[in-house]
Amino acid sequence: MNAKEILMKAVVCDRSGRIIQALTHYQDGIKILMDLVNEETDAGRKKVYHSRIKEYLDRAEQIKERISRFGHSGSLLHNISIEDGATGYSYYTLFGKYLSNEVQEVLIEEPYLIERYQFQNLINFLEVIIKNCADLKFVRLVTKTDNKNPENQMITLDNIKADLSLREITLHFTFEDTLHDRKILLSSGYVIKIGRGLHIYKPNNPRYTLGMCDYDFRKCLQTDVDILRIKKVS
Amino acid sequence: MNAKEILMKAVVCDRSGRIIQALTHYQDGIKILMDLVNEETDAGRKKVYHSRIKEYLDRAEQIKERISRFGHSGSLLHNISIEDGATGYSYYTLFGKYLSNEVQEVLIEEPYLIERYQFQNLINFLEVIIKNCADLKFVRLVTKTDNKNPENQMITLDNIKADLSLREITLHFTFEDTLHDRKILLSSGYVIKIGRGLHIYKPNNPRYTLGMCDYDFRKCLQTDVDILRIKKVS
Repeated sequence: MNAKEILMKAVVCDRSGRIIQALTHYQDGIKILMDLVNEETDAGRKKVYHSRIKEYLDRAEQIKERISRFGHSGSLLHNISIEDGATGYSYYTLFGKYLSNEVQEVLIEEPYLIERYQFQNLINFLEVIIKNCADLKFVRLVTKTDNKNPENQMITLDNIKADLSLREITLHFTFEDTLHDRKILLSSGYVIKIGRGLHIYKPNNPRYTLGMCDYDFRKCLQTDVDILRIKKVS
Repeated sequence: MNAKEILMKAVVCDRSGRIIQALTHYQDGIKILMDLVNEETDAGRKKVYHSRIKEYLDRAEQIKERISRFGHSGSLLHNISIEDGATGYSYYTLFGKYLSNEVQEVLIEEPYLIERYQFQNLINFLEVIIKNCADLKFVRLVTKTDNKNPENQMITLDNIKADLSLREITLHFTFEDTLHDRKILLSSGYVIKIGRGLHIYKPNNPRYTLGMCDYDFRKCLQTDVDILRIKKVS
């Protein structure tokens, strides 16, 4: 897609309230426009580009601020303190009741997606949200780069992206190497904050024991889960 | 446990209607008595042993016949033809509605438990029945020996047995090298017959894609599933 197509898609998403997807397209579109403006020699055209870029940047900034505020506002609906070694805390058990057809977009901020078990946790999480949110359209994933094996991380995420696209769900992943906090934002109006992010489970040891597939059987690490009610994200 | 203790346990299980567990204890107890009778030199005592063995053998044979009849009788409740490549057939989706607190015992006849994915299928199956049958006490597993690596098979099954015992569920496994048919018997009165046994899923490829944990997302192999209603097993 060229800049125009991407930005048109951004505007369509923005107008229909899918602002997480809109933000992603605004950012991608702006990046292309920036490159074009650098190559442009004609002063008049340069000016047009600049004014367009400013317009989209402002809107992207607005959305970005709005999304980041969601993590710091809202009313606390539910707080769960998970004790070390406790069981019965699959993702579904933790927040399944907040999943519904109203969730069209999900934002996942999870700094660590490097080890095998971390990718398995991501898959398990995606299975839960996709099974329970029939109208899910867009997942934005923010994580840190795997400095040791960035290629493996890229291949794995690309595979997951291709798999989701078969279900007409767009997975967009982006890297922010200063990311620390974990957050899951459901566009229906919930924020899930888990101290340890997705990685709250102890490994199954031995391998073939209960908890291999169903995380309700897995022993957990100590962590806190906050579930906040926010305004609908649109 | 000595022969007396095992056989007392068999009788207790038998009287309370847990005949799958009773059969297992009768068979174990008879085996020990057989060894004792061979070592016994006193003719009188030998006779007592023989009469005891006959008594228990008769009862074990009765139960065995009863259990084997279950696979060939009953009324067909439900037949599902799974097409090659179809999804939406996790064990829970297939027979979750027949699982309940009334299931105290389960018999699994599954010839192939050798490869990693086969053990993973077994774990997934156990997770489903244990989560949905709160009063499950006993699982009898019949399978074929892994001729290439019997030690690995033994260690894996022993680990699973130890894991289940933490939940006060006894797993008893036994090897029948002529086993061919697949059957799952729920003591509440259902028989589940799957042409391919537990192994109805295609591998997840690439590894990190939906279906890794939740088998409803897995593509299936072509197979038929029959669910029969039988008399309560007791």
